[in-house]
Amino acid sequence: MEPQMNTSPISFSKDTIVAVSTPPGTGGIAVVRISGPEALDITGSVWRGRPFKGCDSHTAHLGKIVDEEGNTLDEVVATLFLAPNSYTGDDTIELACHGSRWIQREIVNLLIRSGARSAGPGEFSQRAFINGRIDLAQAEGIVDLIASSSRAAHRLALMQANGQFSRRLEELRNQLVEFASLLELELDFSEEDVEFADRHRLSELADRIIAEVDRLASSYSAGKAFKEGIPVVIAGQPNAGKSTLLNLLLEEDKAIVSDIPGTTRDIIEDTREIDGILFRFVDTAGLRRTSDTVEQMGIDRANDRLRRSAIILWIVDATADIHSQLEYIKEKQESIDSEIIQHLIFNKIDACQSDTGISPRQAENMLSLKAKIPSKINISAKSGAGIEELISQLISDAKSMQTDGGDIMITNGRHYEALIKGSTALRRARQLLADNISADFIAQDVREALHHLGEITGTITTSTLLHSIFSRFCIGK
Amino acid sequence: MEPQMNTSPISFSKDTIVAVSTPPGTGGIAVVRISGPEALDITGSVWRGRPFKGCDSHTAHLGKIVDEEGNTLDEVVATLFLAPNSYTGDDTIELACHGSRWIQREIVNLLIRSGARSAGPGEFSQRAFINGRIDLAQAEGIVDLIASSSRAAHRLALMQANGQFSRRLEELRNQLVEFASLLELELDFSEEDVEFADRHRLSELADRIIAEVDRLASSYSAGKAFKEGIPVVIAGQPNAGKSTLLNLLLEEDKAIVSDIPGTTRDIIEDTREIDGILFRFVDTAGLRRTSDTVEQMGIDRANDRLRRSAIILWIVDATADIHSQLEYIKEKQESIDSEIIQHLIFNKIDACQSDTGISPRQAENMLSLKAKIPSKINISAKSGAGIEELISQLISDAKSMQTDGGDIMITNGRHYEALIKGSTALRRARQLLADNISADFIAQDVREALHHLGEITGTITTSTLLHSIFSRFCIGK
Repeated sequence: MEPQMNTSPISFSKDTIVAVSTPPGTGGIAVVRISGPEALDITGSVWRGRPFKGCDSHTAHLGKIVDEEGNTLDEVVATLFLAPNSYTGDDTIELACHGSRWIQREIVNLLIRSGARSAGPGEFSQRAFINGRIDLAQAEGIVDLIASSSRAAHRLALMQANGQFSRRLEELRNQLVEFASLLELELDFSEEDVEFADRHRLSELADRIIAEVDRLASSYSAGKAFKEGIPVVIAGQPNAGKSTLLNLLLEEDKAIVSDIPGTTRDIIEDTREIDGILFRFVDTAGLRRTSDTVEQMGIDRANDRLRRSAIILWIVDATADIHSQLEYIKEKQESIDSEIIQHLIFNKIDACQSDTGISPRQAENMLSLKAKIPSKINISAKSGAGIEELISQLISDAKSMQTDGGDIMITNGRHYEALIKGSTALRRARQLLADNISADFIAQDVREALHHLGEITGTITTSTLLHSIFSRFCIGK
Repeated sequence: MEPQMNTSPISFSKDTIVAVSTPPGTGGIAVVRISGPEALDITGSVWRGRPFKGCDSHTAHLGKIVDEEGNTLDEVVATLFLAPNSYTGDDTIELACHGSRWIQREIVNLLIRSGARSAGPGEFSQRAFINGRIDLAQAEGIVDLIASSSRAAHRLALMQANGQFSRRLEELRNQLVEFASLLELELDFSEEDVEFADRHRLSELADRIIAEVDRLASSYSAGKAFKEGIPVVIAGQPNAGKSTLLNLLLEEDKAIVSDIPGTTRDIIEDTREIDGILFRFVDTAGLRRTSDTVEQMGIDRANDRLRRSAIILWIVDATADIHSQLEYIKEKQESIDSEIIQHLIFNKIDACQSDTGISPRQAENMLSLKAKIPSKINISAKSGAGIEELISQLISDAKSMQTDGGDIMITNGRHYEALIKGSTALRRARQLLADNISADFIAQDVREALHHLGEITGTITTSTLLHSIFSRFCIGK
């Protein structure tokens, strides 16, 4: 019943694959990658230069690619990576050619005519996985690395790609194996009634493992935010200046700004990297009661985005009736999770004669907030005054999310689900321990937990899972 | 007075330059290229892996790029190309990193912070020129190679990039030097009155050189056509089916087709590669007399395109009055150069009861054409009948243009101008020879011819010329 390691129901073809690995388009150079058992022979058949046989791995050679009629297609630099010391683990040649679309296409086509097969998305990485060069979580990290668009997202992807996350999972799996062996010990000695002494130790171990699995699982929402952009929703009554603030935060004219209340109906959003962190700023429709159906749909969607945000900026028009606006915000807050960071932003401060005179404490009392409102920030979205303070606040908010999650944060929904399933199985085991149920039953749950954690790195894999992971890669990787 | 060789008024900075060499965007991998005297030191300062010092040229090494705080930016493969055996001739490292835009940008920025300078367009190739690795014509060939979009254009660019054209020019320059030395000989012996014997030999040599320079210059229009697409203009009276034929030739719906005569007013054109040759198909406004000002402007432009075409397809509506259409074409032909290939295309042949019954010979007689009309082709642009025959004809036309120009064809306006100037100077020299003018005066024209031919490969260069050539490169090449 022990799940089998590194076996899967799919058989992998070991032909030779080829694709352009560099971004599509025209550039100074482009790289055509060919990998598989026939890579040297196939490339050698269209190569005029030093023969590859006898060349060392990791060496670069200038030569020509010639077609079947002997016409030179291009002068290229061929770099050899011999098995097993290549990205895929198979013999690999990277041809750096001139970067015209035409040449790239012709070289790939020539290699296909010479016996290679066009690589599917992620197929080079799939080969690396099959050859044991990387595990699944690392492969997914490489996808994220290629897609990463901020320092924070990149750091998380790299941690996954270079195997840090996999090693942490391996530790957890080792602890579970230890747990399983202690259970077996208990079975062996069950007649001698050593159960109770061991069960205490087992409970402790289970608690430790559950805590770590839960910690990893709980890092998902923050990890996802760092990867896709931390959602910062700008909310407030109509005409409070939400769109003006959005444009200021994005440093571009994204939202249409007018004096007419209710101008913004769609959700307008865009991302901006600030200090290495990607923020996703969302401008919502003004949150007023309306009989306009289209506007009401906008408001419904705004409410939904509020609930899914990480940070809410409540914009208060300092030149208008502040009390009624705070009352309004209080009403809206009722459906909002207390973990969401919230700030009160007093806008149009330059149009006020004096400071609004409401302290954060007073505002908080007035709102009797469930959520913490750590700061009241005065700004003028029109002149830009106070915006630096607001941005500093956002950065410190983001950093607090980061430390909450510890060093490793998960960013992948598949990993999250596997961790939750693993945690559920372990909690069941923990309960059975407490209820003094026989070790046989407990072991079954532990095996299930092992299985779920193993799925993350691919120790346990199915064909469907593999396909869905590697199809997310771009061609050529 | 002899033009100086390989010297130029500009001094070249020899700092270390860096840029992304692969196409812009996201891909599996991207290549960051750094080149210059400090390339190894600068890259070494951010490199965690086997130290570059002591590594052989043309070797690839797996390692990490780390920023100033020691954070890993990416795992990369660094390939070393040590001076003088690199593209630029200076020490060069190519870093193959993960292909996210973010990583590409960060690695370039890190190398700039570490002492490199962002490379301008074509600056790597400029270094290669300065270091004598390539000449100017080769550099321009590399630009064309990267931009080439058909087999024919690519073949011409490659011939230029790999130095075949440069070697032909070198031969011509050697002949001119021989010519100059014969002139000097004449000067030395001028008192002994050996002039006349030598002048005969000189005249012959001048004629040979002029013929070759003219042949190269005359290949320009065909070379340009092969590079940019051979212009095939579709002309004929309104509603003859020109737009339908264009769409058929382009294999897409490019032009708006309607039964209303005069639908097409703009010049509609696009390129398609057929059998390795790029054709530029041009649909013109129907060539009828009109009082509509906008339509008249379209017709004026159509007439202009007719004169600049390589091939004209005269579309005749076989269901309408053929004689009046042929009369019309005859009128239009008067302003058209006799070198332009022309075909009569009888369209809507499927709507005819019988063949039009006009033989090519009859049609030609009827038109009393100055130009050769090698074929009369019956087609139905609507059903596609006869289109294969038309396409075969176009391919054979294109191939005849190719052989007219010999093996080497020039494709660059700068080269064309230099050849024309060289030819003009040589013709002056030839005339002076015939007029028995003193060798001193003749030598001046020969020097001028040498200068102009030298400009092509950059033996003679000026700062302005260099700038205009290398700024056409993309960054990273």
